[in-house]
Amino acid sequence: MKQRRNPVPTVDIIIEININNHSGIVLIERRNPPFGWALPGGFVDYGESLEAAAIREAREETSLDIHLIKQFHTYSDPHRDPRQHTITTVFIASATGTPKAADDAKNLAIFQKDNLPTSIVFDHALIIQHYFQYKQNIPDHVIFSLA
Amino acid sequence: MKQRRNPVPTVDIIIEININNHSGIVLIERRNPPFGWALPGGFVDYGESLEAAAIREAREETSLDIHLIKQFHTYSDPHRDPRQHTITTVFIASATGTPKAADDAKNLAIFQKDNLPTSIVFDHALIIQHYFQYKQNIPDHVIFSLA
Repeated sequence: MKQRRNPVPTVDIIIEININNHSGIVLIERRNPPFGWALPGGFVDYGESLEAAAIREAREETSLDIHLIKQFHTYSDPHRDPRQHTITTVFIASATGTPKAADDAKNLAIFQKDNLPTSIVFDHALIIQHYFQYKQNIPDHVIFSLA
Repeated sequence: MKQRRNPVPTVDIIIEININNHSGIVLIERRNPPFGWALPGGFVDYGESLEAAAIREAREETSLDIHLIKQFHTYSDPHRDPRQHTITTVFIASATGTPKAADDAKNLAIFQKDNLPTSIVFDHALIIQHYFQYKQNIPDHVIFSLA
């Protein structure tokens, strides 16, 4: 098989959580550039499934043991990550317990649709918008335009 | 960013076609090992979106200009490809015209649910099974079991 440069697979996780009747999704504040808020996530290891990577990355960055609900969508715009071309598969998951920032996350918080942070990195603002459209039962073909 | 070995992103395309009132999906017979029948597809280039790769690979292997209908699912079992760990994003697409095998495809044919070839490589038999379940309106959470 010829050697070639490939896009790099990653995962991101939309973690739905309810703490003291305060429901929302978990975002992390990144410890490393690009700085800002992001979905928990990271690189998929060779030999690791996307599902295993999602569970591992969620635990590493939020200290939560998640339950995967749905594989949501895979995003591949070559410019979605300023560092290199990554392709991310996004999962929706649930979790109980108290999240705690760790690893690449220096801080975390729970957000709702109407109080998202202003500085969201990568294409995660778009992903989160698609997620809230999905939760409003807007059909896939309206959310995701295909070539 | 540390260097590491990553799974390799690929695309596969379920092309729905109707020729002389004969409807089905296009499978190719592979020119290279592993030998057998497969969905059209291939590697995603660095800097290329999944959607662009799907359109390009469909054209290269089937000579068809496809219309993407839906991003279906992304499959990542580390053992799905015997050569190396690949992660494939599968699209459903439509096409008109007459498919013609080219490039990595030495032959092609149109198949229905009940007359699939026996020698289907990779995890494509599973993907095709999921596709026909999806067409029967079986809900996603029944088709795709998550960790």
